[in-house]
Amino acid sequence: MTAQDHGARRSGGRHAQRAERRAAILEAALELIAERGYRRTSLAAVAERAGLSQQGLLHHFPTKEHLLVAVLEARDRWDLASSAAAGPGSLGTDTLAQLVDYNASRPGIVQTYTVLSADSVTEDHPARVFFESRFRAVREAMAVALRAEFGDSLPGGLTPERAAPLLVAVMDGLQLQWLLDPEQVDMPAAFRDFVALLAPATGRRGED
Amino acid sequence: MTAQDHGARRSGGRHAQRAERRAAILEAALELIAERGYRRTSLAAVAERAGLSQQGLLHHFPTKEHLLVAVLEARDRWDLASSAAAGPGSLGTDTLAQLVDYNASRPGIVQTYTVLSADSVTEDHPARVFFESRFRAVREAMAVALRAEFGDSLPGGLTPERAAPLLVAVMDGLQLQWLLDPEQVDMPAAFRDFVALLAPATGRRGED
Repeated sequence: MTAQDHGARRSGGRHAQRAERRAAILEAALELIAERGYRRTSLAAVAERAGLSQQGLLHHFPTKEHLLVAVLEARDRWDLASSAAAGPGSLGTDTLAQLVDYNASRPGIVQTYTVLSADSVTEDHPARVFFESRFRAVREAMAVALRAEFGDSLPGGLTPERAAPLLVAVMDGLQLQWLLDPEQVDMPAAFRDFVALLAPATGRRGED
Repeated sequence: MTAQDHGARRSGGRHAQRAERRAAILEAALELIAERGYRRTSLAAVAERAGLSQQGLLHHFPTKEHLLVAVLEARDRWDLASSAAAGPGSLGTDTLAQLVDYNASRPGIVQTYTVLSADSVTEDHPARVFFESRFRAVREAMAVALRAEFGDSLPGGLTPERAAPLLVAVMDGLQLQWLLDPEQVDMPAAFRDFVALLAPATGRRGED
């Protein structure tokens, strides 16, 4: 074994250790957000839960916003992975409805997404670039999914490209109403109502 | 004139003066939010613009959240008044589309609404009660308006009550996408696309 091999192995080890630490921090952050909500989750509490000093955590995530964006990115990766696991071309309104069901079981992360995405519209916000490019990517993916499911022409004369921002808007807007008033707003049922508006047939999809 | 009359008049004068001050503060806040956005509008700047000391402003609005909720309440009153001025029973999807047009010309206040409504879902937020009851009232008003315009049965087998939260969700969700990416998201056109989904005919409303 050469000195170079040793160096590469050490650097690989450091890299793996760094990735492990990051993963532990994200997991701790997700747990705490689920337990006590977005606002009451401090960097100090996340560091403690992940078994790091606060200085150690700041090395990975310099601000709370950086950490929260990383949490949301991780959620997107997991959601995308479970959708891909369901089979190729499986991103459709059924998968989305299941995602909404799942979201209804995790108000903490939905709260984080709702607060941080809205906050990102303010001037020079550290999460603005993340959300801007995320929304572009999500609209594009939704347009592809809608075309695969319903073809080029949707009700009301809409194309999949024009329906996509509405689909995303409904998901986001319903999350806000549901977080404020879970007794009055049945988020999963309301999302399926919107899907029924997009289905070309007159009846509700899945009932025929 | 009795001493009692004098007292009543003085108290009436104080009341009018207080209302005038409040109105001047709200106007100053609206102007500043339009000029520099939600985040960069400080209570100190609002006080200065309104010609008050910061202490004087705190007497009317103890926190920035209190002031911002009052700004949003005032906007609701104005929007409602201009809709009522358009004639009785005039709240319909056309009026709403015009409101969306108007919102596209005032990003500052839309930004304030988007950030503050999302923020209100966090624990013990001072604006939570306001938004919870506002959303209930808006959903009810939308259901009434949809029934008046489209009857009891909408596409996809939806009732006006089930379409109402979707209508509100689309407005809110589109505001978020538009604030982040005004070049890519044509908010007024997208809102009209959603209205086309609600119209019972197959074509687009207004084109027949």
